[in-house]
Amino acid sequence: MSTLTPVTADFELAGIDPSSTPEFDGDKKDAEKALAKNGEKLAALQERLFAESKFGGERRVLLVLQAMDTAGKGGILRHVIGGVDPQGVQIHAFKAPTDEEKSHDFLWRIRKELPEAGFIGVFDRSHYEDVLIHRVRGFSMPETVEERYGIIQKFEEELVANGTVIIKVMLHISADEQKERLQERLDRPEKHWKYNPGDVDERLLWAEYQEAYEIALRRTTTESAPWYVIPANHKWYARWAVQQLLLDALERIDPQWPSADYDVEAEKVRLADS
Amino acid sequence: MSTLTPVTADFELAGIDPSSTPEFDGDKKDAEKALAKNGEKLAALQERLFAESKFGGERRVLLVLQAMDTAGKGGILRHVIGGVDPQGVQIHAFKAPTDEEKSHDFLWRIRKELPEAGFIGVFDRSHYEDVLIHRVRGFSMPETVEERYGIIQKFEEELVANGTVIIKVMLHISADEQKERLQERLDRPEKHWKYNPGDVDERLLWAEYQEAYEIALRRTTTESAPWYVIPANHKWYARWAVQQLLLDALERIDPQWPSADYDVEAEKVRLADS
Repeated sequence: MSTLTPVTADFELAGIDPSSTPEFDGDKKDAEKALAKNGEKLAALQERLFAESKFGGERRVLLVLQAMDTAGKGGILRHVIGGVDPQGVQIHAFKAPTDEEKSHDFLWRIRKELPEAGFIGVFDRSHYEDVLIHRVRGFSMPETVEERYGIIQKFEEELVANGTVIIKVMLHISADEQKERLQERLDRPEKHWKYNPGDVDERLLWAEYQEAYEIALRRTTTESAPWYVIPANHKWYARWAVQQLLLDALERIDPQWPSADYDVEAEKVRLADS
Repeated sequence: MSTLTPVTADFELAGIDPSSTPEFDGDKKDAEKALAKNGEKLAALQERLFAESKFGGERRVLLVLQAMDTAGKGGILRHVIGGVDPQGVQIHAFKAPTDEEKSHDFLWRIRKELPEAGFIGVFDRSHYEDVLIHRVRGFSMPETVEERYGIIQKFEEELVANGTVIIKVMLHISADEQKERLQERLDRPEKHWKYNPGDVDERLLWAEYQEAYEIALRRTTTESAPWYVIPANHKWYARWAVQQLLLDALERIDPQWPSADYDVEAEKVRLADS
């Protein structure tokens, strides 16, 4: 088990160094080696979780990924989630809401994408956009945003009660690191498609976003659905750390191979005769 | 490009040896090496397909997997599709239809799971169940099944016209091979969850299923949406072969990095100032 600790209701985002590598003792090479090794463990645990669900198990995992642009969500999906059997994974990337989605309450589209029992679900952005960009850009009234923290807490409590282990991760990069990464996207033609002029518009509101994140995390980090701020200036560290959180979750769940609900010996006879 | 050839409207399923390894020159080890190497190519091509779609590209791939139980669909998903960035893949496993699904026409639930532009979609079972198990088990009237071949052809033509490259694969194992694989599931407690007594019920109708497959494939193999029968007694061969088909499809599509639709130099200035 790792000892990565969630944030508390009075944490300060500015107090967390985006270049730090808490609980990891080693360099990039060590991290990549650990990632490969732990990937096998994670895949094995996921298979058991999936097996369990076929015989009535209700447990599942939901990883919520939030971050400023370029912080590395895609790399987490590719390198951490990519190591798990794709049959056991449900990824959903939430974009700007459609008109239909806007005509419902903000959790409507979220509920539709919740992972089934036995799965690891991953939200690439999530219902937290409704208290982040909505706060910064004023897409919702302040009192509506205020109200949502409590609605989110209740929503997540309900998921936990129904067998979901929720891990909420903010990938935390520095403004300088983001600048370098955006620069790289502009410098390399095969990366142009990853760049969007809107990214700079959001970047100009960096301080406002950091504040919105701090408030949202403080208000919604709970014992049953805690937030982790993962320093992400080093991509290798962030991948290792998120994988640790998933491993911890699955080790806590400790899924077991289910017992057959049919008569194994009788089936052997039927099969032999077939 | 591989030279794997689709079946024709007069092919005979019994003429295809499930233990053969057409177009592959080598053994298991060679196949595993090729799988790893080609996996990188496939991942790179998929990224380009995805990039293209972000700038208006409409192209996508749909892999339809059909097979008797234990033929290795799961292994294809794990070892072939698992090598692609999970952000660019949409897998759907079609189970026995729900009451709601039954109350619609048989393509209703299929349409909902079609891949978005830029994605590789995989159907683990598909609309073909409606002419396979429905024929064998009599779930639909013979004239309804008969009518569906034409409906499926039209449906797939429509998808192709809208930018989908369709690859349809039947994984072809022998009855003896299936018996061994089911036996293994019964012999190993950690595999019990993969066994279902219904598997033997279906197995008892082996000849009827082979006939249903042969008819369905003959009736729906078209130039734009061809069927491939992939010998699958050797799992390593089937994985290599399906990967080849995907590679061929993506090489034919030949997706290109899109050009920026913004002013790159102006953005460099904006970023520098931010």
